[in-house]
Amino acid sequence: MGLKLYGLHVSTCTARVLAVIEELGLEYELVPLDMNAGEHKRLPYIEKNPFGLIPALEDGDLVLFESRVITRYLVRKYGKESGLLREESPADAIAIDQWIEVEAQQFNVPISSIFYQHLVIPLFYGGTTDLKVVAAEVEKLGKVLDVYEAWLSKTKFLAGDFYSLADLHHLPYVHYLFTTTPHGSLILSRPHVKAWWDAVASRPASKKVIAGLTLSL
Amino acid sequence: MGLKLYGLHVSTCTARVLAVIEELGLEYELVPLDMNAGEHKRLPYIEKNPFGLIPALEDGDLVLFESRVITRYLVRKYGKESGLLREESPADAIAIDQWIEVEAQQFNVPISSIFYQHLVIPLFYGGTTDLKVVAAEVEKLGKVLDVYEAWLSKTKFLAGDFYSLADLHHLPYVHYLFTTTPHGSLILSRPHVKAWWDAVASRPASKKVIAGLTLSL
Ligand SMILES: N[C@@H](CCC(=O)N[C@@H](CS)C(=O)NCC(=O)O)C(=O)O
Ligand SMILES: N[C@@H](CCC(=O)N[C@@H](CS)C(=O)NCC(=O)O)C(=O)O
Repeated sequence: MGLKLYGLHVSTCTARVLAVIEELGLEYELVPLDMNAGEHKRLPYIEKNPFGLIPALEDGDLVLFESRVITRYLVRKYGKESGLLREESPADAIAIDQWIEVEAQQFNVPISSIFYQHLVIPLFYGGTTDLKVVAAEVEKLGKVLDVYEAWLSKTKFLAGDFYSLADLHHLPYVHYLFTTTPHGSLILSRPHVKAWWDAVASRPASKKVIAGLTLSL
Repeated sequence: MGLKLYGLHVSTCTARVLAVIEELGLEYELVPLDMNAGEHKRLPYIEKNPFGLIPALEDGDLVLFESRVITRYLVRKYGKESGLLREESPADAIAIDQWIEVEAQQFNVPISSIFYQHLVIPLFYGGTTDLKVVAAEVEKLGKVLDVYEAWLSKTKFLAGDFYSLADLHHLPYVHYLFTTTPHGSLILSRPHVKAWWDAVASRPASKKVIAGLTLSL
């Protein structure tokens, strides 16, 4: 089969794909990039992802980038029966698409910014966290999670009472929120969000991916 | 059939959905919201979109939000033969999914920020454009469009030599880049991007939507 994933275990976007690979039990080869040396910004890598970002996937002749596109591709091609997309049930599939987009549009923006401020800037750029920016993003994320809290009081997972790609996509950043920022209480203070996160994080596939998310100051 | 679209003709996210409605020639009712009065942040609207944002779509019992989810839904349900998603051809469908995500993740972020600074802040909040923020976002958008320029030298549209949802999703913000900011040269200075934009904007459906994008200072 020969799946080749270009990326790093510690990277949030790579981990999103790894979580699907682990859920489906696929064989793959991880091809690491030396990002300090800028290997992701040069040929030959930018022929795989012209934006010079990880991850990218090679599956035979097909080359794909954007983590949320790769996850959908893998489920459609190798894991229809996993229930992660439920395309055999149009109503479920639409709900999953809905909440995949909520993660990408509403949740990802503030949480990636908080992670960037608390971890990426000090660790990779030798800078200092801008606490004003963090405060504004924490407020935004709190509002998003208020909606999640109300929603998750009705169903166990975001798209219904079943685990789906919409839940899975949250894994890397929520984990790092606990381990690299002081804002884990955003999750813990909301009982339904906390129960949802416990269900997501305790899956065997999630645990394997979390073991690789080791970035810290 | 009875499609009800909650939103405003002038709103970029609503216009993304309207562009699909026009491409497919669907009948619909536009239900406007009084956003100055905060109607989108209160019941009953937040039962349709709990995040208090426009647009939302009602199709019988189904309620959906997130513009890029609504567009996919409409094409799958009412316009398979339009070619906007080409799901009968897996390779084309994957390329479309890839470039839909590029628009959402790479392109939308800087261009929506430039629009927000140049138009939304002065028009709706009585504030002033932060030119330092704009300069940083213009640089980011320029780099994204450099990738588009190279890509569009090989195919006429983003996912191949056919118009798709991936191209359509760009319509509202590129139009407003010309009419509400001084940064239209980001498009015009790149010949393949310019030719692509001319092809997108000259479609009859696009023209109808553009006629509604009338916000200005
Ligand atoms: N939307 C993209 C984002 C990719 C992305 O930003 N990747 C980060 C690592 S998580 C990266 O490559 N950063 C290096 C850089 O910005 O130069 C995806 O989900 O794949
Ligand atoms: N990702 C959402 C974004 C929705 C959105 O931000 N809508 C704007 C109008 S284009 C809005 O409702 N703004 C009002 C507000 O922020 O209160 C989508 O594509 O539908």
